[in-house]
Amino acid sequence: MTANTEHSFVAINYIDCEESYKPRFEELFSSRAKAIDKMPGFKNMEVLKPADGSAFLIVSYWDSEEAFKAWTGSPEFREGHKRGFEDIAKAKQEGKEPPMKSSFKTYSVLAR
Amino acid sequence: MTANTEHSFVAINYIDCEESYKPRFEELFSSRAKAIDKMPGFKNMEVLKPADGSAFLIVSYWDSEEAFKAWTGSPEFREGHKRGFEDIAKAKQEGKEPPMKSSFKTYSVLAR
Repeated sequence: MTANTEHSFVAINYIDCEESYKPRFEELFSSRAKAIDKMPGFKNMEVLKPADGSAFLIVSYWDSEEAFKAWTGSPEFREGHKRGFEDIAKAKQEGKEPPMKSSFKTYSVLAR
Repeated sequence: MTANTEHSFVAINYIDCEESYKPRFEELFSSRAKAIDKMPGFKNMEVLKPADGSAFLIVSYWDSEEAFKAWTGSPEFREGHKRGFEDIAKAKQEGKEPPMKSSFKTYSVLAR
């Protein structure tokens, strides 16, 4: 490992899942649309499954904040999240709590 | 990006830093001992700086949980964290709150 002064942009989506929804959440990622992979400025992503009951982390790496924002505002983003969004909308229609809640935080790489 | 079924182990140390300690925290990493880099089973690490005031993330990737545990129990771990541990001990001696608090969570890679 060598010093890396590249200033890349990292977004982490922290996903709190209801226990009963976790198998579905994992299924969504095992068959994901890969819509993100072709976005300009996209570098890499990974989904981290917690050893305890805490949030799943969806970590994505970008050339810049602008590239990340272009993704979240794109038709590809809506398409890539379609099944999850439908699950949330269905719960809402049925007067239930959403099966997952997400919270974005963004970071820069300080050191490698 | 292709599907990756490798089951690697990820540890994230969430570091809450006092505002006044942040420059020191960043300095510690810009001049880190790189003691971790030679540990068996170590793959990669990065330090993520939050865009908001939330925790810094020290993310490390390992071949297995055993490799990670061997690191946290090693003399190299103590040596690599020496300066930060000394800062915390000094605050304690002076009857102050520690300038940073850390909390480990561990993960497996669900998808890439």
